[in-house]
Amino acid sequence: MDNDLTIARRAHLKPITKIASDMGIGPELLEMYGEHVAKIKLEAIERLADRPRAKYVVVSAITPTPLGEGKTTTTVGLGQAMQHTGRRATIAIRQPSMGPTFGIKGGAAGGGYSQVVPMELLNLHLTGDMHAVTSAHNLLAAMLDNHLFRGNELNIDLHNITWRRVLDVDDRALRNIVIGLGGKSDGVTRQSGFDITAASEIMGILALATSLQDLRARLGRIVVGYDTDNQPVDAERLKAAGAMAVMMRDAIKPNLLQTLENTPVLVHAGPFGNIAHGNSSIVADLIGIHTADYLITEAGFGADMGAERFFNVKCRTSGLTPDAAVLVTTVRALKVHSGIHHVVAGRPLPPALLQENPDEVHAGGANLRKQLENIKVHGVTPVVAINSFPGDFASEHSAIQEIAESLGVQVAVCNNFIEGGKGAIDLAEKVAEAAQKPNDFHLLYPDDLALREKIEIVARQIYGAEGVDYAPPASRQLDNYEANGFGKLPVIIAKTHLSISSDPSLKGAPTGWRLPVREARASVGAGFVYLICGDISTMPGLSAHPAAEGMDIDDAGEIVGLS
Amino acid sequence: MDNDLTIARRAHLKPITKIASDMGIGPELLEMYGEHVAKIKLEAIERLADRPRAKYVVVSAITPTPLGEGKTTTTVGLGQAMQHTGRRATIAIRQPSMGPTFGIKGGAAGGGYSQVVPMELLNLHLTGDMHAVTSAHNLLAAMLDNHLFRGNELNIDLHNITWRRVLDVDDRALRNIVIGLGGKSDGVTRQSGFDITAASEIMGILALATSLQDLRARLGRIVVGYDTDNQPVDAERLKAAGAMAVMMRDAIKPNLLQTLENTPVLVHAGPFGNIAHGNSSIVADLIGIHTADYLITEAGFGADMGAERFFNVKCRTSGLTPDAAVLVTTVRALKVHSGIHHVVAGRPLPPALLQENPDEVHAGGANLRKQLENIKVHGVTPVVAINSFPGDFASEHSAIQEIAESLGVQVAVCNNFIEGGKGAIDLAEKVAEAAQKPNDFHLLYPDDLALREKIEIVARQIYGAEGVDYAPPASRQLDNYEANGFGKLPVIIAKTHLSISSDPSLKGAPTGWRLPVREARASVGAGFVYLICGDISTMPGLSAHPAAEGMDIDDAGEIVGLS
Repeated sequence: MDNDLTIARRAHLKPITKIASDMGIGPELLEMYGEHVAKIKLEAIERLADRPRAKYVVVSAITPTPLGEGKTTTTVGLGQAMQHTGRRATIAIRQPSMGPTFGIKGGAAGGGYSQVVPMELLNLHLTGDMHAVTSAHNLLAAMLDNHLFRGNELNIDLHNITWRRVLDVDDRALRNIVIGLGGKSDGVTRQSGFDITAASEIMGILALATSLQDLRARLGRIVVGYDTDNQPVDAERLKAAGAMAVMMRDAIKPNLLQTLENTPVLVHAGPFGNIAHGNSSIVADLIGIHTADYLITEAGFGADMGAERFFNVKCRTSGLTPDAAVLVTTVRALKVHSGIHHVVAGRPLPPALLQENPDEVHAGGANLRKQLENIKVHGVTPVVAINSFPGDFASEHSAIQEIAESLGVQVAVCNNFIEGGKGAIDLAEKVAEAAQKPNDFHLLYPDDLALREKIEIVARQIYGAEGVDYAPPASRQLDNYEANGFGKLPVIIAKTHLSISSDPSLKGAPTGWRLPVREARASVGAGFVYLICGDISTMPGLSAHPAAEGMDIDDAGEIVGLS
Repeated sequence: MDNDLTIARRAHLKPITKIASDMGIGPELLEMYGEHVAKIKLEAIERLADRPRAKYVVVSAITPTPLGEGKTTTTVGLGQAMQHTGRRATIAIRQPSMGPTFGIKGGAAGGGYSQVVPMELLNLHLTGDMHAVTSAHNLLAAMLDNHLFRGNELNIDLHNITWRRVLDVDDRALRNIVIGLGGKSDGVTRQSGFDITAASEIMGILALATSLQDLRARLGRIVVGYDTDNQPVDAERLKAAGAMAVMMRDAIKPNLLQTLENTPVLVHAGPFGNIAHGNSSIVADLIGIHTADYLITEAGFGADMGAERFFNVKCRTSGLTPDAAVLVTTVRALKVHSGIHHVVAGRPLPPALLQENPDEVHAGGANLRKQLENIKVHGVTPVVAINSFPGDFASEHSAIQEIAESLGVQVAVCNNFIEGGKGAIDLAEKVAEAAQKPNDFHLLYPDDLALREKIEIVARQIYGAEGVDYAPPASRQLDNYEANGFGKLPVIIAKTHLSISSDPSLKGAPTGWRLPVREARASVGAGFVYLICGDISTMPGLSAHPAAEGMDIDDAGEIVGLS
């Protein structure tokens, strides 16, 4: 089989104006970026409001291995498959971050015959939304440090500044830095650091804003730190929010691309699923929900991560309610959850993992069961999608089927990586059936619980923890947030994506452990309180041999090594 | 008169495809970014090669005040005026940097009725080229620090690393930083810093590359530092150059916009005129030179700065030879060069400066004379353009005329800020006349002079210095560059733009001073040796009240405060 880039280059793309018009979106609502990418103006939300509402389907997964289990591939395949069953689908996914693209994993546009195209644009700058987030974030940082340099009229406490800087690169050397060294004219010396752009609060705002004016208001509410009376200081008081909105004015418009089979794909915002809220934008979904029979969106990493936040943060904010969920599962990941095998990114799979062994699949089944429960607890009906690999055995697929059916959950085997949409027709039919069921969606917790109670609920009910331990700074921060009126916000828990617990080495569905909350950050603008748990960093580092080393342009100027 | 943004919004823009087709560029050579911006594919260089060659005109200026003297406005006005005289013109300018746009000066799209539109796009992200430079630059930095973290196989000397990081923001707190603090997994601790993106060597490469393959090769030649044997280590050896080229693959294509009167404007690359080479890209000019009767390009700041580098770096690299030059002059700047008045950005002009006083103009005339000589020494015929202000007096314009005519130079009064192109018809006619003269262009120095001799020539002949003093590190660096074979490169001298000398307080045409070279950097990829002189920073800071404070979006989502 050809590699992803070769398949993508052979694709028969339709003009993006044609894709849009099939969604009911006329050229007056588009801003073209070449022939195959367009931004959709936000007027589309109102313009489409009277059209029928699509069924809303979220695609999540079991806890993945470091290789990923093909969630984007399945999301794309499901959208493609809907067309084969006579249903119209729109797909909504996040924009990949260049940090990991050039770092560990290469492109993130799906794979095989279920890709989003043009994949080179998707994996690189696209229409510059990520860069706009970086620019706006760092303008606020510069204005904050300029305020300190100019006499600190707002009495900002130098030891209680929470706003860092961001770059869309994997760069561990920027995690902890001292700035403002040099002479008198070189600013105020203090400790700080960079996060990756995907973890920026402004990325959260881009993903959660419901309009340009809402984005503007949220930017103003960003808390950059606290004054010497421990009162929050926001971007509005630094007079930075207007200029940040100017920088973000085009970024708030969702990007329209297509699959290899010409299914419309909305690509917008890129918060990571481990250290951020892991879902594409609300404005994309507010548009997409009126453009098809099914709106299929993807939530980052396992159901404990992106899907939990899809339900409790994204749907809470948008008011949209999901009609069904897909849980992507692979034989190899369940075998890893058995605890018998160990998988490392960039190295070949252990040969023992590739032997026929349905018992090992059963042994890892606890993870699948727990992640299915994590969806069902929100009143949503899941369908298991087996992302099938050439080396899988029928007995192993049957093992997955037995586990799922013991919970009354339907299962479909997906071959869309090799076959495109027609390889996921069974999944499409089962998702359609699930989406017809009466909608019993509910949030996990109400707004007015205390922050610690919300954290406890997620930790116990979703992660299976016995309880939560707070480091002293996290505890003080949470007290402060409650005192400052941020207690009504939902919570986002940054932790490893490689375990349902906060310890990446614990596989399956770990019990008997406690969630260690190391630090809390108030993302008041984005609208959540952000907890950092365990050994997790908000700025990744590069591996010994980053993907970038294999990338280049060839003599014809074409990209090689990006897949 | 309305403000720039209001005038720009009323403009009758033509579809950019129409602008391009009038240049002889068909739609197959364009990549659209909306209706009014397109990137031009580099195939255009070859495709247009047989078409007639335009006259090549560079627009420079006397030494400006901190307010700027309207060089972009005059460049745009000259292009517009050419059309009024029956000649076709293409304009080529740099992309504004968001650092100063949100910092001190607001937009940089020309002004009044001589603007480049859409000005909001031009002044913000445009097509993302600046962001691509930032991304590629910082990827190389991350790969360098990752190399150190992974064991430093190349034996890079931690105390001799020259590659810093960049951001397109005015942020003094990032000038001098310590990175790699924290724990064992957080990288190697060392001192470093950020420059503004406009000062990145990759910006220089973008501006000076002649093709995508040339860009790729130049990226590989970037020297990031030296090993413990004092041998240079380049980006190729870090295996970063291919990935950087992937990131820059679209950025290398020039952007096409238009003036308020539909003159084509190529906007490409944005190196500053003081701390970088100050000229738009070679690839834009290689396209533009075959698209009109006149290709009018702007060089940053005074003729000692951007124009000197236009001649000795840009033309040396491209092989194109200029046919005429324009020197933009204002009454107010000449009065400041008299030494009598002092002008501060953001404050009203001193009332005494606004009184009729041709003697003060004469008293500042030395600067005009010296900058005219700085053009003539390259064998190019200058024309003086008086950028006329409503408060100017005829006697003051006459004073400028007398100074110029004493050197045999033609003068035109320009009212294009208020009148558009028809306000610069006299300038267009005089430039056309100058461009008909026999071309006697020559470089100031040959490639094979030693670096110190080249610096000496620029310092003495262009700046009027008595000599050059090297700080010990600069001296060692220059010895090292000669030893490593970088001695054949031309030189770019970073210094204040507010004086022909390296001391911003010295007005007119200072003599009796010596140029202090503080530091040397080898921009081997871009193809020049870069000298830092006097009290100049490669990362600007924000003022007490940055332009950003006045920017916002209104209820209709339109930008306010950007002009």
